[in-house]
Amino acid sequence: MKNKNIKIIGFDADDTLWVNEPYYRNTEKKLCQILEKFTPLENSKKLLYEIEIKNLPIYGYGTKAFTLSLIETALKASNNQINGIDIEKIVTLGKNQILQENEILPGVKETLEQLSKKHVLIVATKGDLLDQERKLLNSGLLDYFHHIEVMSDKKVSNYNRLLKHLDIKPDQFLMIGNSLKSDILPVVELGCQAIYIPFHTTWEYEKVSDKDLPVGKYVEIKNISELLKLI
Amino acid sequence: MKNKNIKIIGFDADDTLWVNEPYYRNTEKKLCQILEKFTPLENSKKLLYEIEIKNLPIYGYGTKAFTLSLIETALKASNNQINGIDIEKIVTLGKNQILQENEILPGVKETLEQLSKKHVLIVATKGDLLDQERKLLNSGLLDYFHHIEVMSDKKVSNYNRLLKHLDIKPDQFLMIGNSLKSDILPVVELGCQAIYIPFHTTWEYEKVSDKDLPVGKYVEIKNISELLKLI
Repeated sequence: MKNKNIKIIGFDADDTLWVNEPYYRNTEKKLCQILEKFTPLENSKKLLYEIEIKNLPIYGYGTKAFTLSLIETALKASNNQINGIDIEKIVTLGKNQILQENEILPGVKETLEQLSKKHVLIVATKGDLLDQERKLLNSGLLDYFHHIEVMSDKKVSNYNRLLKHLDIKPDQFLMIGNSLKSDILPVVELGCQAIYIPFHTTWEYEKVSDKDLPVGKYVEIKNISELLKLI
Repeated sequence: MKNKNIKIIGFDADDTLWVNEPYYRNTEKKLCQILEKFTPLENSKKLLYEIEIKNLPIYGYGTKAFTLSLIETALKASNNQINGIDIEKIVTLGKNQILQENEILPGVKETLEQLSKKHVLIVATKGDLLDQERKLLNSGLLDYFHHIEVMSDKKVSNYNRLLKHLDIKPDQFLMIGNSLKSDILPVVELGCQAIYIPFHTTWEYEKVSDKDLPVGKYVEIKNISELLKLI
């Protein structure tokens, strides 16, 4: 890394600082079970994904958007035959996911503690503003960050706006995250630095084909503690 | 106003820059009509309000939160007897509200154009991040603002964090908005300046009793164009 250039380090939150995707997959599984009387599990799963992607421009990311897509999936999978009791169960699935206890990933606290002594750290995450603020507040990690930037998406244009708002040049920004699509590719395209830390579960939508990877433009590590050797 | 002190002017968005609350009331009316086969209009309206307030800490503000509360109201008002077709109608009510064309209030564009020549303007709004970014982008007002701050709530602690993030002292911040509860009271408490522009429709939750008003601590004007004489 070109350490001396780095002015601000941005951390993705979900599945970089704390567990997230497994909760979505768990809720998905429960939805598919509720809908099994109408259609096989695999059909509901596929339908939910299609509806989520269709709704992204309208609803954006986060658990409220997800819950609305769960309900729409239930209506479609059942041809509107689903009853109120099952709809209520689905609303509750969404609420339980929002209120799910936040599980910090191993090594995160120690690494942030060290890094925050020498660098300005921010959280740069998409998802729901209230959810992310609540998770950060409950994480015990708040003091390590200068502030949180919740972004409506993580495309090149969003990062461009972020750099302007932070008033820094691209090579002064290092982004760290678990999504090649959202945390690595767009920032590399802007000339920022990037470190990729894969997580064991990735949402289908965030997957990137190997041929689209910008070889040599980012660093991959296995776990967050390795940052201390790199930065 | 202590003009020479002002470094940043924050504008509330909904019902200050553009129409918002009437769309909520219109959707509420349509929900109550759908539910009229189960319960009188006034009961549904009261139930929706109770459910919205109960859900605020979980869902926060914005149309996705509102849509989820509409669905929950329908389930409760019908004792879970509502059918899939009606639930689908309610999901569509929410989507239509999100996709509703944004109507800028009279005088806003001209006023911002003048003010932005001499002052740093920001949007400081609660609600849904994606919704507010989209509305600002489609408003033609984007260029007048340095950036947009979407806040998960507008309490004293949120404004305190905002001032820290903006790196200014309280008396260097002027907030302008249509909600005494969200735009005026908390900023006045922090020692900021505030200008109140009432809007004809106010959500029950945002109403403030006359006895709680900090007399002499803020200025009230009838329409946004009057700002040009004040600042």
